[in-house]
Amino acid sequence: MSALIDLPTNLLPLQRFVVDALVRVEARFDAQLRSDLLPVRRLCQHVERYRGKMLRPMLVVLCGLAARDAGGEAEGDDEFAISDDHLSLAAVCEMIHMATLVHDDVLDEADTRRRGDTVNRLHGNETAVILGDYLLSAAYHLCSGVPGEAGRQASLLIGRTGMTLCAGELLQLHHRDNFSLDEQTYFEIVERKTGSLIAAACRLGALHSLADSAAASELAARFEKYGMKLGVAFQIQDDLLDLTGTQSVVGKSVGKDYELGKLTLPIIHHLASADEARRGQTLALLSEHTRDDDHAPARLIGALESTGSIVYARAAARA
Amino acid sequence: MSALIDLPTNLLPLQRFVVDALVRVEARFDAQLRSDLLPVRRLCQHVERYRGKMLRPMLVVLCGLAARDAGGEAEGDDEFAISDDHLSLAAVCEMIHMATLVHDDVLDEADTRRRGDTVNRLHGNETAVILGDYLLSAAYHLCSGVPGEAGRQASLLIGRTGMTLCAGELLQLHHRDNFSLDEQTYFEIVERKTGSLIAAACRLGALHSLADSAAASELAARFEKYGMKLGVAFQIQDDLLDLTGTQSVVGKSVGKDYELGKLTLPIIHHLASADEARRGQTLALLSEHTRDDDHAPARLIGALESTGSIVYARAAARA
Repeated sequence: MSALIDLPTNLLPLQRFVVDALVRVEARFDAQLRSDLLPVRRLCQHVERYRGKMLRPMLVVLCGLAARDAGGEAEGDDEFAISDDHLSLAAVCEMIHMATLVHDDVLDEADTRRRGDTVNRLHGNETAVILGDYLLSAAYHLCSGVPGEAGRQASLLIGRTGMTLCAGELLQLHHRDNFSLDEQTYFEIVERKTGSLIAAACRLGALHSLADSAAASELAARFEKYGMKLGVAFQIQDDLLDLTGTQSVVGKSVGKDYELGKLTLPIIHHLASADEARRGQTLALLSEHTRDDDHAPARLIGALESTGSIVYARAAARA
Repeated sequence: MSALIDLPTNLLPLQRFVVDALVRVEARFDAQLRSDLLPVRRLCQHVERYRGKMLRPMLVVLCGLAARDAGGEAEGDDEFAISDDHLSLAAVCEMIHMATLVHDDVLDEADTRRRGDTVNRLHGNETAVILGDYLLSAAYHLCSGVPGEAGRQASLLIGRTGMTLCAGELLQLHHRDNFSLDEQTYFEIVERKTGSLIAAACRLGALHSLADSAAASELAARFEKYGMKLGVAFQIQDDLLDLTGTQSVVGKSVGKDYELGKLTLPIIHHLASADEARRGQTLALLSEHTRDDDHAPARLIGALESTGSIVYARAAARA
């Protein structure tokens, strides 16, 4: 776990604090999913193995610490401190994320996730759909346990974020195989589908470190904006890995996006900037969706490189 | 709508009140699902057409009225009165129910629901999965809007109920094609999968009419128990319709349960009480799962009648 966070040595105490917090988040996550039914327990144990970077919980914790400093709430001897609610909200964000992974694997017909078999592969689509619903319900239940008006605001934000996230996925499905998808719509999809939950994690972390005030609200909005930008960059990077990565390195099925008619930033940029002939060739490559053609991925990447579209997407992620 | 509630004439004012309340629940339901994205709006409009009996919202309203009388909270000139929160909670229960219908249709590979095409039929399984998630999120968001500690308790109950409901479905999937499923496990599945949400609707309606007290808590538990029994009876009836109904009358695909290896009460009773030879014939009939054999349903019903299993299930529903 410690290798996941790459920090200068003077930040080692912070690193230790965050790692310790994430261990407590994991424990809360597992306790919340516990069921009296053995088949349900077994499925949850399988899903717990999906846990990877813990990006969203880490952001709840880090933004909680940062807002406490920035908002002048830090006092006394405690160099680092977050509340019990931060741990619950961190687990909530990871649980919602996990639910979307389980359901995404059904949509993407994916077999591999974090180097293991997906739930749909092992137990069928039906079980994967209901298990995702179980995770969503468990997340909302855990969130509702956060007391007071701050808890209610967290539940409203998590509910609203769930709606936004799904609306983004539905917009993406609506544009499946739409080869004239523009960048604006792509960013609209990505902001909702990926940015919204990461933004919510940052906002929740910050809000729960601050006393209720106009200044706190403004500060939380800035953390939220940071999360949105991070989320979009993260998704572009993920889309690039789907194109250029290999399953053994990425740890999940790759090449699924264009197989499923999902246009991502490098392809959108390429189709908009290629000349007529090149564009025609790429469209033919995309519309074939041929999984059997082993050379198709390499040919697609060659095409994307010819218009500088991979470089363009990398730069967009960095920006 | 008015024909849905069959009441003696002296209860006509009550009927008018309930019908009026359900119209307001529908308006709240539709407002909550509204999206700024046209494809999402269109999908929600399709789902709104699924609305049928509105059993769960009706129970929130009726239990709200009954608990007010029973708890001695009714006073003044208002013969009937429920709060604004009752309307929200009624819409919440219907939204969770609708989410399970949309996902069930994916699991059951059903084409028809309320005499119209299912979402999965029209837009594919992917869209149906995400639309169900959107409905779940919208339900939790609406529930989190109910203010105060009572609202928080409602959110906890709804989150917990979502988990129970999914655990019931997962248990059912686990026992798919298990021809030695016993009645106890069947009731365990049905109580969770169908009973829990109907029980929650009754409890929420009652709780939100009562001041916080030990007597109120006991009364709410009795309403909840009533809901559980009603829910179980309802599910047995639904299972019978799947066996003995026709699509034109029931308004949704029939014969799906045994096609999908789901054992229901009449079949469980039959397998437990038939003699060896008869049991063997029925198992052969069930394990074939032949959709093409037009005579299979009639043969199955004949077998069930020979052991009095349809009558047995009808009696169980009535009890």
